[in-house]
Amino acid sequence: MVERALDLGRTPEADKVIQVALRNFARRGYVGTTTRAIAQSLEKSPAIVYTYFKSKHDLLYQIVLQGHEELYLKILAARDSETTPVPQIQQVAHTHATFHAQHSDLARVANYELYNLKPSALKEVLEIRSRIQNTVREIVVEGSMDGLFHVADLDLATIAILSLGIDVSRWFRSSGRLTIEEVGLSYAAFVLRLLGAIVPAEQMTPSTWPHRV
Amino acid sequence: MVERALDLGRTPEADKVIQVALRNFARRGYVGTTTRAIAQSLEKSPAIVYTYFKSKHDLLYQIVLQGHEELYLKILAARDSETTPVPQIQQVAHTHATFHAQHSDLARVANYELYNLKPSALKEVLEIRSRIQNTVREIVVEGSMDGLFHVADLDLATIAILSLGIDVSRWFRSSGRLTIEEVGLSYAAFVLRLLGAIVPAEQMTPSTWPHRV
Repeated sequence: MVERALDLGRTPEADKVIQVALRNFARRGYVGTTTRAIAQSLEKSPAIVYTYFKSKHDLLYQIVLQGHEELYLKILAARDSETTPVPQIQQVAHTHATFHAQHSDLARVANYELYNLKPSALKEVLEIRSRIQNTVREIVVEGSMDGLFHVADLDLATIAILSLGIDVSRWFRSSGRLTIEEVGLSYAAFVLRLLGAIVPAEQMTPSTWPHRV
Repeated sequence: MVERALDLGRTPEADKVIQVALRNFARRGYVGTTTRAIAQSLEKSPAIVYTYFKSKHDLLYQIVLQGHEELYLKILAARDSETTPVPQIQQVAHTHATFHAQHSDLARVANYELYNLKPSALKEVLEIRSRIQNTVREIVVEGSMDGLFHVADLDLATIAILSLGIDVSRWFRSSGRLTIEEVGLSYAAFVLRLLGAIVPAEQMTPSTWPHRV
């Protein structure tokens, strides 16, 4: 997966420690990963980890925090690229799904390992999660007030929108049939439908889709 | 979480080992859980695990296999409780979402830890996953052929339907605002919408919902 796009590290070597830790956390879980295993993947002694990070927990914290910050900024930019709820939620859903496809290791660690964070670190991350959720919720609320969306439970609709994107990091494979862009476009259409905005079938098949098998 | 409804164990003691293993796998991951930790949670020696199971892997295999079998049977029963695609997909989506809410530990282990299974065990589990996916896909196909559903990519729509249910096990808390039944009803409606079947807003709010805060 392409994780390199994210500026998670400070120096090339610290960045390498983060990339290897991330891959280990994603494959073996945070609890199942030792600093020794991270160092071994780098063919170094465990000291390499402690040169840049206070602890294994510090590594998880840096990864999860910066992953959330990066996603939050992208979600804000997606919202601000449009001015009305329908295109705004399309842009946000597209960004959310493609982020989870492109950075699937990072997303899985951020979504499934965050409860291994200590209370103060967890609190900080949960605040960013709330901000992401509120950004989506505000668009859903505005669209509902404008009569564009029709949902019974604004919070549950918001959760379902985020669920669709989050689960992409579980199933998406870059070697699979669909490109990241195809997933993003389809998910933007799915989200509009989920909100009760009527989408014609044609809009579900962008003509630019390359039909790969 | 209510895991007791599932008949995972053979004897009360073997069942207890499974329940404790399941909780540990869900909290700490499979790799992060030792047989010693499982035995310690039971206040027994590690021999207790080996009395009933060949290995930690055998425990994971039994849990993941039986969890998938249980879900598959429930999905089939949901489908067979109706005869046409619209109510069938509603029943299936309801069953899928409520199963992931009710058995959230089991579902998380089955969905996020299955790649820790050895090849032959993994193959067996992936076959049941395929059968679940095909059951959903067949309804989507039939509904599309009948002009009831309108989707551009049958496989991606199927994945998105399953994604919504799977992610319930990540976010649902029985102490939260919504009951399992409310989530099931809402998700049945979300899935119909995702498929391009038009659902009136009233149907998104069952009048029987207790409005808990």
